[in-house]
Amino acid sequence: MKKCLVAVGLVSVLLGSAASADEGMWLYNAPPKKQLKSKYNFELTEPWMDHLRLSSVRFNNGGSGSFVSDQGLVLTNHHVGADAIQKLSTEGSDLIKTGFLARSRDQELPTKDLELNVLYDIVDVTDKVKGAVTKDMSAEQAEAARRAVKARLEKESLDQTGLRSDVVTLFRGGAYHLYRYKKYTDIRLVFAPEIGIAFYGGDTDNFEYPRYCLDMTLFRVYEDGKPVKPKEFLKPSQGSLKEGDLTFVSGHPGRTERQNTAAHLEFLRDVRYPMALQNVRRMEVLLRTFSERSPESKRRAQDDLFGVQNARKAYLGGLEGLQTPSLLESKRAKEARIKKALSTQPGLEARYGNPYADLEKALAVYRDLYEDYYLIGAGRAFNTRLFDIAETIHRYKSEMGKPSEERLREYRDSNLDSLKQGLFSTAPLYDDLETAKLADSLSFLLEVRGADDPLVRSVLDGKSPRTRASELIRSTRLKDVDFRRTALEEEVEDPMIQLAAAVDSESRRLRTVYEQQVAGPMEEAYGRLGLLEYEVGATAGYPDATFTLRLAYGPVLGFQEDGESVPAFTKIGGLFEKGERFDQAPPYNVPDSWMQARSRLDLETPFNFVSTPDITGGNSGSPVVDRKGELVGLIFDGNIQSLVLDFQYEDKVARAVSVDVRAIKEALSKVYQADFLVEEMGL
Amino acid sequence: MKKCLVAVGLVSVLLGSAASADEGMWLYNAPPKKQLKSKYNFELTEPWMDHLRLSSVRFNNGGSGSFVSDQGLVLTNHHVGADAIQKLSTEGSDLIKTGFLARSRDQELPTKDLELNVLYDIVDVTDKVKGAVTKDMSAEQAEAARRAVKARLEKESLDQTGLRSDVVTLFRGGAYHLYRYKKYTDIRLVFAPEIGIAFYGGDTDNFEYPRYCLDMTLFRVYEDGKPVKPKEFLKPSQGSLKEGDLTFVSGHPGRTERQNTAAHLEFLRDVRYPMALQNVRRMEVLLRTFSERSPESKRRAQDDLFGVQNARKAYLGGLEGLQTPSLLESKRAKEARIKKALSTQPGLEARYGNPYADLEKALAVYRDLYEDYYLIGAGRAFNTRLFDIAETIHRYKSEMGKPSEERLREYRDSNLDSLKQGLFSTAPLYDDLETAKLADSLSFLLEVRGADDPLVRSVLDGKSPRTRASELIRSTRLKDVDFRRTALEEEVEDPMIQLAAAVDSESRRLRTVYEQQVAGPMEEAYGRLGLLEYEVGATAGYPDATFTLRLAYGPVLGFQEDGESVPAFTKIGGLFEKGERFDQAPPYNVPDSWMQARSRLDLETPFNFVSTPDITGGNSGSPVVDRKGELVGLIFDGNIQSLVLDFQYEDKVARAVSVDVRAIKEALSKVYQADFLVEEMGL
Repeated sequence: MKKCLVAVGLVSVLLGSAASADEGMWLYNAPPKKQLKSKYNFELTEPWMDHLRLSSVRFNNGGSGSFVSDQGLVLTNHHVGADAIQKLSTEGSDLIKTGFLARSRDQELPTKDLELNVLYDIVDVTDKVKGAVTKDMSAEQAEAARRAVKARLEKESLDQTGLRSDVVTLFRGGAYHLYRYKKYTDIRLVFAPEIGIAFYGGDTDNFEYPRYCLDMTLFRVYEDGKPVKPKEFLKPSQGSLKEGDLTFVSGHPGRTERQNTAAHLEFLRDVRYPMALQNVRRMEVLLRTFSERSPESKRRAQDDLFGVQNARKAYLGGLEGLQTPSLLESKRAKEARIKKALSTQPGLEARYGNPYADLEKALAVYRDLYEDYYLIGAGRAFNTRLFDIAETIHRYKSEMGKPSEERLREYRDSNLDSLKQGLFSTAPLYDDLETAKLADSLSFLLEVRGADDPLVRSVLDGKSPRTRASELIRSTRLKDVDFRRTALEEEVEDPMIQLAAAVDSESRRLRTVYEQQVAGPMEEAYGRLGLLEYEVGATAGYPDATFTLRLAYGPVLGFQEDGESVPAFTKIGGLFEKGERFDQAPPYNVPDSWMQARSRLDLETPFNFVSTPDITGGNSGSPVVDRKGELVGLIFDGNIQSLVLDFQYEDKVARAVSVDVRAIKEALSKVYQADFLVEEMGL
Repeated sequence: MKKCLVAVGLVSVLLGSAASADEGMWLYNAPPKKQLKSKYNFELTEPWMDHLRLSSVRFNNGGSGSFVSDQGLVLTNHHVGADAIQKLSTEGSDLIKTGFLARSRDQELPTKDLELNVLYDIVDVTDKVKGAVTKDMSAEQAEAARRAVKARLEKESLDQTGLRSDVVTLFRGGAYHLYRYKKYTDIRLVFAPEIGIAFYGGDTDNFEYPRYCLDMTLFRVYEDGKPVKPKEFLKPSQGSLKEGDLTFVSGHPGRTERQNTAAHLEFLRDVRYPMALQNVRRMEVLLRTFSERSPESKRRAQDDLFGVQNARKAYLGGLEGLQTPSLLESKRAKEARIKKALSTQPGLEARYGNPYADLEKALAVYRDLYEDYYLIGAGRAFNTRLFDIAETIHRYKSEMGKPSEERLREYRDSNLDSLKQGLFSTAPLYDDLETAKLADSLSFLLEVRGADDPLVRSVLDGKSPRTRASELIRSTRLKDVDFRRTALEEEVEDPMIQLAAAVDSESRRLRTVYEQQVAGPMEEAYGRLGLLEYEVGATAGYPDATFTLRLAYGPVLGFQEDGESVPAFTKIGGLFEKGERFDQAPPYNVPDSWMQARSRLDLETPFNFVSTPDITGGNSGSPVVDRKGELVGLIFDGNIQSLVLDFQYEDKVARAVSVDVRAIKEALSKVYQADFLVEEMGL
């Protein structure tokens, strides 16, 4: 195993200023050693961190997990695994609803397109990326130069190590680190509980607490047809976790917006969040009504529906934060101090320019661009996987004619295996659901751009959105995976590929404008702002979340809500009490398997708990460990008060929500009669 | 009884050109006598029409109904009565869920704020209204002059007859008729079935066919504490209605857009419908999540939720029509002919100007105004009845200082009784539901106008929408009806009234711009266009729907869907078959009362049927009668294909959906043991 390189340069500089309370989604190569030592008298050692890092697993569909046995068993949330479980379900066999348990290796179900990554090491390449940009370059040239050097570094690293290699932009352009991952693609389903206990309380209880969820799934990672022996894996704690105990979370927070300027937060409040909410509300209404047609319709739409409901709650919570004046006021107060320093301290402006002005300029472009970019550049106007497949095939042909570093990011050599893994997935697609989604999104496009827009006319071909969607889905042959393989190599005629071709130039144009006039200049300006903030002593020491591995910490701790104390732990007994209190009516009905096991279960077993570590979406499935690095829990949610964490840390009432490992043992053993798993995990 | 005056002047002129097929929502004073004679050999006589008109009842909350006994019994839909039934329900007693039957007069439940109208006569006042406008007036002056003369005519009529008197604008300004109604406000609930059979199939089956719904409610109208003896009432048919039989529908279609120019339809497609859908989707997601908190939350939100789901389906169907190019193409082709005549036939432009250009100018203003007018002018940013009450009280004080004809329409003398009827309604209000609705709509306002907008700042008072809504709902005393009475007469301090006062000037400004620069000029231009269309032979003979009494006709007739024949009638037996086919899972579970009555019921009894008469929203609850003027059915829905009727008539697949009167008899007698009602109605 290579040692994790400790970053030098910018990161160690930025680390200077400590974050408050238990704040922080810390880089593994810039960990909060001092904070842990001074507040908790805990020595964060390299072997301790290596063990946790190499036990941590990234689910590339947007979640986290961990190795929990020497036989490649990986623990994550049910809702992280749900996409894979849904793709393994069929009309007669709804594994989301019934759950699944493989009682032997040969019963384990190979997933369709899941990719897991384990972080092997990190290399600071800040100097190399920044060195590629010279003073005389325009913003567009600078962005192209950065893209080229990142692609080259990734390619060199892949060739040299065989590891998936991604250059990650940190501190919004303040630092660039090369992350090298061991990649696994033969992932098999071992155990999933039924949705009725995995997501007990449904959308109603999502982001709420107290909870009673067994939100877990077990996969097994294979390589060369055999279970892998991971370098490291987590052993379960045999102790008794209690309120006040220090815990650590190792996972992949997806995205936070804490470094944003006030103007950038206003953009989120006024443009991005309302647009995202408009889209998820459309989708929610569509999928709900689709679901109600029949039990099979419900089965087909359930994973999509969970996704949009979850997103709706998260965006609403975020928007509530953004719309609360105090958040922006504290941000503006901080900016006023920095701006004052910029205008009064000699040399600052010469060194850093005026990043605020540059950011406002880029945001002005983004505001104007946003709707079109969202719908066409980001493809939301064509809401069917069949369009994504068509676009990938169409673009593959032109992209592969260029050198790797000039290609769109997802077509670079280092990513081609992952791209094909998705493209050739045999996950089922249903004409009725794909038609409903495409029709609605085409209507959205028509509503926003108008019927006389040339692109809209070309897309709709003289038909209504519904008629056009129905015709496209019915006639495309891309539902056949073999046809996708043929289409990637040969010229084929297919209406969906023709559609992708028809919108490609506008879609690429929007993406180029976004990258060159928005993302690039913002990255560059935020990079300068990060250095400026450090120099005036106003930085947090960890970068915004980037769906890369981070370490967070904090104690198990209850909170106050509406004047009442909410205890840190729930117990298995509380599940049965809640089911009875609601007369076993959905979503509070206790599933049959649990009702039948009731007399065998120790009702005093801790079920879920809350703690203060700094997490967000993407952390789902993260292991929670104690001081010994032993597994005590499994992150699966935050409370509604935690949604403001996207913009600033808070530990009065914001809490991470976990499944207690003792409940996992109790359930596997007494509800699911899976003592062989209890034994394998050493529970 | 006064005889219904036959209109002279414009209407008889406009009548010249016949509508096609069984098209038409005909005025009672300009009925389709020729069409019925030539196509169906049916003589439409004045006594026949008077009988049907005086048996017809308008529900002022947006529906239709009819007198069905000489003891004041009124038949309408359950979903028309649902608002009143919901207001009679409490936490322990959910009459929507359980249904209700008064077995004696003293058990009948007085509704909270229902107002019914019966059309006594119609007077053509076109010349008087048009005569008030002189050539030298500006558009604003013309609009003010029309308002003044309408108010004067209404006041004179009220004083003279004691009848509710409304001047109705027909043909978009081509004609003005004074409608005189007998008004009833003591309305008592007699019978409502449980929602499980009234709305069998729920949102999923709404606007679908075949159906199995007993969507009926019976009220009794009282005056001076006694049941009224209506001038006329409908007797049920004792015959056997069958496919092909001619039927008539007498009811109050709310709004159609058939006279719209292509530019106006584009405005609906691009602006009004997308905005309305955005709002109903917001509301639907909000009310669904609210409902799922507990059974009591569900009860509180159910009527609102039904309303927004119904609106969502209706708007989606309408938008689908607008987005289908052929609709606009046929409209544009017709316009091209008229425009050609306008530019080539001597004298036309001199007489009519260019109404198309004038309409486009007004639509341009409307486009710019729309969002603000929708949110503030029409009050959707303050989505709680408590705001409506506060606004009414605030405005009442200033409006009452003006002469009646200068007041806002709803404060004119002729409307004051109705206004107070609503204002002092004791219908229950729930803090949690009102807070959720107000918070969401305040957030909508903030999203649209931005946080820096002075009005938004003043409305939110430095707080987030949720916090502000919670504070307003908690502290307003307007929940107390006695306080409303006090507030109407005295100066009071109340935060909701203060809010209404704070937005009043902007709200009035938007309304004035709308009335003077949009509605007024459009009314005037459409008036000229109507005359022009008549002169070139391109008019339909009936005006767009205006929520006034209309007569429609057409046979009972099945239709084709997805290549299959859908028969005209369903039978009671089909209900039980459907319940079984779906394993009695909601929304297809047959209610207990029907399951228990199954063996007693004649399963061959016709349950629902479809027919071709030209209807739309507002026709809900309309009686369907046969050639003899006897009751055969009760309109309750249109199929999804009928939603295009808002823009053009269609009778290939568009159908009205009714409850068969034979099912009403069977259910009242055998399910609900209400033979006394069967007898009273003569079923």
